[in-house]
Amino acid sequence: MKRFVGMRRENYGSINLNPIQRGGILTPAAREVLNEWGDGYSVCDFCEGCIHDIKKPPIDVFTKEILPEFLEIDSVRVTNGAREGKYLVMHSLCEKGDSILVDGNAHYSTYVAAERAGLTVHAVPNLGAPEYKIDAEKYAEFIDSVKPKLAVLTYPDGSYGNVPDAARVGKICHEKGVPYMINGAYSVGRMPVSAKNLHADFIVASGHKSMAACGPIGLLGAGKEYAEKVFRKSEKYKKKELELLGCSARGLPLITLMASFPAVVERTSKWDHEIKTARHFSSELEKIEGIRQWGEKPHNHDLMSFESEAYYKISERHKKNRFFLYSELKDRGIVGLKPGITKNFKVSTYGLSEEELQKVIDAFTEISKL
Amino acid sequence: MKRFVGMRRENYGSINLNPIQRGGILTPAAREVLNEWGDGYSVCDFCEGCIHDIKKPPIDVFTKEILPEFLEIDSVRVTNGAREGKYLVMHSLCEKGDSILVDGNAHYSTYVAAERAGLTVHAVPNLGAPEYKIDAEKYAEFIDSVKPKLAVLTYPDGSYGNVPDAARVGKICHEKGVPYMINGAYSVGRMPVSAKNLHADFIVASGHKSMAACGPIGLLGAGKEYAEKVFRKSEKYKKKELELLGCSARGLPLITLMASFPAVVERTSKWDHEIKTARHFSSELEKIEGIRQWGEKPHNHDLMSFESEAYYKISERHKKNRFFLYSELKDRGIVGLKPGITKNFKVSTYGLSEEELQKVIDAFTEISKL
Repeated sequence: MKRFVGMRRENYGSINLNPIQRGGILTPAAREVLNEWGDGYSVCDFCEGCIHDIKKPPIDVFTKEILPEFLEIDSVRVTNGAREGKYLVMHSLCEKGDSILVDGNAHYSTYVAAERAGLTVHAVPNLGAPEYKIDAEKYAEFIDSVKPKLAVLTYPDGSYGNVPDAARVGKICHEKGVPYMINGAYSVGRMPVSAKNLHADFIVASGHKSMAACGPIGLLGAGKEYAEKVFRKSEKYKKKELELLGCSARGLPLITLMASFPAVVERTSKWDHEIKTARHFSSELEKIEGIRQWGEKPHNHDLMSFESEAYYKISERHKKNRFFLYSELKDRGIVGLKPGITKNFKVSTYGLSEEELQKVIDAFTEISKL
Repeated sequence: MKRFVGMRRENYGSINLNPIQRGGILTPAAREVLNEWGDGYSVCDFCEGCIHDIKKPPIDVFTKEILPEFLEIDSVRVTNGAREGKYLVMHSLCEKGDSILVDGNAHYSTYVAAERAGLTVHAVPNLGAPEYKIDAEKYAEFIDSVKPKLAVLTYPDGSYGNVPDAARVGKICHEKGVPYMINGAYSVGRMPVSAKNLHADFIVASGHKSMAACGPIGLLGAGKEYAEKVFRKSEKYKKKELELLGCSARGLPLITLMASFPAVVERTSKWDHEIKTARHFSSELEKIEGIRQWGEKPHNHDLMSFESEAYYKISERHKKNRFFLYSELKDRGIVGLKPGITKNFKVSTYGLSEEELQKVIDAFTEISKL
């Protein structure tokens, strides 16, 4: 059991380009509270029966005032993650055998949540290569044909970082009377997101993916038309919200979410800069022959996919074969690409400093010349 | 939003007698890894699709070898907590409208999990004051009459700290062909627990309550007869376990659970000492006229409830009224009792040093003389 003592994180200190990692890096303010709030149920010292009512630390103000204002939605609860929020909504609104509608770029966890709830999933397909966009208008015909109990849109998706026209999908859903959920795991905490402007009845967010919090933690926002239903109380225990099993994210992840929150709000106001960074990165990489960005162009998000014939060709003659790209990047202090993959890769440039960005661009360029 | 920066934990550094807190205090080994593993999805740096297969850090060995051996059960998964594990089992084994059987001292989250799964809960009542014991034999007649799809036993319960005859309940359940789940939120990580010896088909544990881990995290162990069912894979995503929504406790809580684990194993071997401590505390408190321990006597667990007429009487004439007990203890560096309660209280003596224990006994004694 010695191996569990003093475990080191091999990637610690490297530039980590993995899209699931960049938005979850703790802020200094979050690091500062780790020790004091690390013990098990530390947030429950002054609990009177419901995590969202706790005043010390100010979870009540955070979840009842600050977060609804931030997301522009009526009610917000913390959950154990975005997927847990999606399942919660599906389980509350649908019966086994019902259908839901999702976008063709939906995250696997949307499908898995639906399968757990016994639902049939229909998907509005994306428009194919090279942009793989979702056409918002298609939600109308699909709603007419599959009569879903819920429509879900991934905003943006985790494969291409496409930012679809969520407001238009919301309008269509409302016209057709279908509850509408946005999966904002890669948007909330990175870019400005208003559930109101996007006409969302539900929005899920991920603290560990995009809000500089320890995992696992997420948010679920609900409009007033549905809040009572999804946050309904237990019949036997009047203070306990049934779908949250009483209390959800009861521990340090919540504290780090709160501690990081002022910085997270601040950073969403600099989203233009992040888009500029991403576009610059994309155009620099596309200068390499045999590298092409997939997804929307010009790109509107820090998460990007690249087709990389250039690296595949090198791998065929490199002594490390298909592991050369991972290895060469690692030698340069850059991690986060899947080991063994050279034909395509996915990265995020979120929060990279100018210097780091240049280092990454230089690395990819150098490696293309091997 | 300034209030979220630099939040302090008012109770930090005090002796915290709250039973939900004592077993969750981080070990030094866990504190050591907080910073390095704090970032969002840190555990996922080397993920290949399933959290239980991750080799760096060694989550695979931990969950597939070490934990099954520790709990003496075939398969173990990390969950977001004990309640999430209970819901998972209920949702896998039962259909809406089914009945389950629980003990009369069951935690609220057992009821809430069952309600979320649409189940009817029947309870084997406890034997009433002053010991509130559960009679294992009664499971037989209740199983015959309510025909439950699942039987649950709280081992021990969170109200009295009674340690029921779980092995006998297990034998009865097996004879009657009813799957049997033990809620070990207050036992696993504190005392030796063998699912095998207790004839349990399922066992849930709580990392934040009893295994020196950050919340929220738990364990779910399952016997081979049921493991395939409760840990069934998604049809669409073959690596993803459906009821875990793919991955569960994806973050720092898992790392702290692993880092603390060697010390946790070690401490369970000192359970005799903890019982001695609890019994000594109980007998010292009962020397005060008007204080009486509820629950099993002699007691077999660190969680204890006391009836305290003595303090109620003082509260009637004390200037702080019913808040005097909380306040007087706090002045002496002791926290964890519910503010405003004097007629009875619940504490845990788990892990108190001899010196701390004496300090607590002296405090209660002194306060009784006010």
